[in-house]
Parts: sequence; structure tokens; C-alpha cells
Amino acid sequence: VDPADRGLAYGDGLFETMAAIDGGIRWLDYHLQRLEAGCSRLSIPAPDPTALRDELRQAAGQPGRAVVKLIVTRGVGARGYAAPKVPQPTRIMSISSWPDYPAANYTRGIGLRSVSLRLGENPALAGLKHLCRLEQVLAKIEVGDTAEEGLLLDCSGFVVGGISSNLFMVRGSELATPALERCGVKGIMRRVVMEAAPRLGLHVAERDLTPMDLEQADELFVTNALIGIWPVTDFDQHVLPRGAATSRLMDRLGYGGDA
Amino acid sequence: VDPADRGLAYGDGLFETMAAIDGGIRWLDYHLQRLEAGCSRLSIPAPDPTALRDELRQAAGQPGRAVVKLIVTRGVGARGYAAPKVPQPTRIMSISSWPDYPAANYTRGIGLRSVSLRLGENPALAGLKHLCRLEQVLAKIEVGDTAEEGLLLDCSGFVVGGISSNLFMVRGSELATPALERCGVKGIMRRVVMEAAPRLGLHVAERDLTPMDLEQADELFVTNALIGIWPVTDFDQHVLPRGAATSRLMDRLGYGGDA
Repeated sequence: VDPADRGLAYGDGLFETMAAIDGGIRWLDYHLQRLEAGCSRLSIPAPDPTALRDELRQAAGQPGRAVVKLIVTRGVGARGYAAPKVPQPTRIMSISSWPDYPAANYTRGIGLRSVSLRLGENPALAGLKHLCRLEQVLAKIEVGDTAEEGLLLDCSGFVVGGISSNLFMVRGSELATPALERCGVKGIMRRVVMEAAPRLGLHVAERDLTPMDLEQADELFVTNALIGIWPVTDFDQHVLPRGAATSRLMDRLGYGGDA
Repeated sequence: VDPADRGLAYGDGLFETMAAIDGGIRWLDYHLQRLEAGCSRLSIPAPDPTALRDELRQAAGQPGRAVVKLIVTRGVGARGYAAPKVPQPTRIMSISSWPDYPAANYTRGIGLRSVSLRLGENPALAGLKHLCRLEQVLAKIEVGDTAEEGLLLDCSGFVVGGISSNLFMVRGSELATPALERCGVKGIMRRVVMEAAPRLGLHVAERDLTPMDLEQADELFVTNALIGIWPVTDFDQHVLPRGAATSRLMDRLGYGGDA
């Protein structure tokens, strides 16, 4: 990578982290749609979708599982924040081995621990999977090995989600998740879950949630495109069940076993 | 640069932009102090100061002026936000030609235009010159060529400063500048000005400023380590003088001519 790439200099770009399974990429269309929408919001010319799809298929073209990560930046630029008039975006694809997620994260569930660092709010960047992730890095340092995932709040005190996952709360027939209009990343699995939930009789609500709301949840779970769904069974030492709604969603989306 | 460098992947690093003049770097000690303090706040092992000083002296070792930019990242890491247990920081130094700042920016002053994008607030990152600068990139796109500098407010509606500069307001004998405890970068020239001002009879105050305050300023100016000091003589079409306090500071710090 060119040291003058704006992805390095300013975090001026986006990324997608994808699950490659037996030669295909799971939820590929959703990843490509999010990437294109993100490029549009940042005024970065989007990669040609056909060429990109071919590259990704090639990257994923092996039996078994792997992680395919794609970074798209605004490309090389002169020093200074001003964007090049005609950006030549950089595309970086990397393949890494599938992480050994413990089976217990699916069956017994995970611990979620509140992080004291609060996320800055910026509607211009909210929802995007952009490269400026220092907040998440510091949050992860704070959590360390004390829990599988950290819970992030925004400056206003509302729940954003996990450090590298989205958070859902089941209460009665409601499936609530933060709207992410002020900060946070709109994950691919978040979208998948929101689309699947109504067919299981769950009413999806994107709304503000407080840590108090979470304490009164029937069920909590976190999602991302690699892990799928992990039930949260310990939230700051409040014990929760691996509940029925979570289990049905996991079964429906193929995470019912140890995934 | 390794594509797996965390500077690229997550904006996980810091930078310094320095003015090299005739073989030396202006305000070098301040740059090195800020870098070391930033590394400490981000738990990145700081570069050895003696080796770094030597490298910088070498980079700057030419007659005339140049810009020396130093990036320090947490180094190469595995995928995921978790920081390596023993980070091996990456150091990237680049030298670029001195920008042709118009002489009029010093003599006649510049235009400062309010930007609608608001900066997210995060005390954990406030003050640092870290690599996550997508907000500044978008703000610069918004301003375009309509003014020399854009004025950034935080989410709470208070002034942060210019997109790539700090802002000072003179009113009577007060020299006010935002405290930058919630967001923004604590610039090197900001420190230089704050240290010089009392000797010119100015009382320095780090405090919240609103756009209304700026409209009632006697004088406004912006600073950074490359430009030095530029008087603001047009703030959102409010005309201001290139005032006496600004001129005295410019003279004192060597920006009295066309710098």
C-alpha cells in the first residue's frame, strides 16, 4: 500500500468483512449494497460491481471457511484533507483463516460488559463501516479478556451495540435494536435478522435503548457477518437465558448448532 | 506499507506535520512531546526519541522549506480490533514540497466559512492528532473553494476550530480559544501562541465559544504549524479587521511578513 494512500493518512475509506463458505460469500449482495451506499455517502467512486463480484468470488473460491476482507479507500492523494478532484480509489482484498469461535458462544452464550468509553456522535458517518475505528480499538483494550464483547454507549448515554457487533433486545414480541442514526455501524447480519424476524412473529423496532432497558430484557443477542448470532447470557453480571426467540432466529439463519 | 497495518485498517495511530526550515524542524520539541503524549494515551509504544530526532534531522536536512510528515501506527496486526499484546509500531516519514500559501493570507487575511457537519465528541480522543480524520475530509469537501478555511462546531454547537487549524478570538485583552476537551486537535502553533500571548499583554482563556461569540470578536485568527498565523478577516461574510493583537503575535512569532 502506498504510504500516501488516504486510507492510511486519514481513515478515508470503508471496509467489509465477509464470511466465505465453500467458495461463496454469505450475504454478498448485502455487503456490496452497503459498500456502494457508503461510497456514495463519502463521495468515493464505487468499484465496478461486476469486476468486484468476480474478484470476491475468486478470493472466496476454496472449500471450507475463510474471512475475506475488502478495504476501499479514496486512493492516493497529496498531503492535506482536500480530496483529489478525480479520486482513483484503492482496493485491498485480504483473506484470513476462519477464527475458532468457541462453540459455547452459540450454545451457552457470551458475556457482555459495559465499556466506559462513549462513542462520538456524527450523523454524517453513522451507520457506515468506515476506516476510522480508534474508538473501537480503545474500547477493546478496555474490555480485554473480561468478556467476549463490550457494550458501547453513545455520548448521550444510549446503547449503540457491541464493539464489533450489533445488539438486539427481545422483550415480549418486540425485537428492539438501536437505530444507529448518530453513530455505530449498520451490520449486514443486523439487516438479515431484521428481515427474518417478522416471519417469526417478532415486531422489529429501531429505537433508543438505555442500559436500564437491557437489564429488563427477556433476551439479548449480538450479531455480525462472521459470528452470525451469539446469545448474551451475562450482561454486566445480570444473568439472562438463551431465550426462545434468539434460538428460533439462530435456527432459521443457520447458527443453531455451533455454526 | 503492509496492508495489514492497523493505521490503514483502523486509523490506529497518530501523525505530526512539521515545518522544516533550512535543515531544522520548527517547534520540534513540541511535536515530539505531543507525539509521545499521544502514544501514551493510545497505549502505543512511543518511538525512541533520540533515534526519531536523528531521523527527523536527516529528513529536514536541506536548505529551504519543506513539509515533514511523520505517521506512527500501532503496527501490523491480525484482523480484528484487539491490539497486539506486544505492538511493533510502524513509522512512516514523508517529505513534501512547501505549499505556496498566498501572501495575501498573511496580509489581507482569510475567509472562514461555517461547516454544517458537526464533530463527534469523544474525550478519549480529544486533543490527539490521530489518524481518524474522515470528519475533516468531509468538512473540507463541504467547504470546497468557497473559503480558505472551514469552521467546525461540535455536536453541542460549540466552536472547535478550523478544519486543519486552531482558532483564536481576541476580545479586549482576552485571547480565547476552545479547550478541546471533547474533540479537536491541540495544535503545536496553538501551544506556541498560548505561551507567547501573555508576554504581549493578552490574557489567555481556554473556554467554550459559540458562533455568536465569534461574530462579536475584535479579531479572529487561525493557526497551525505550517501556516503559522492567518488573520480571519471574513467570517461568514462578517468583515473583521486584521487587528493589532494578531499583528503583534505574527510579528513576535515570525509571521509578520509573508512568512
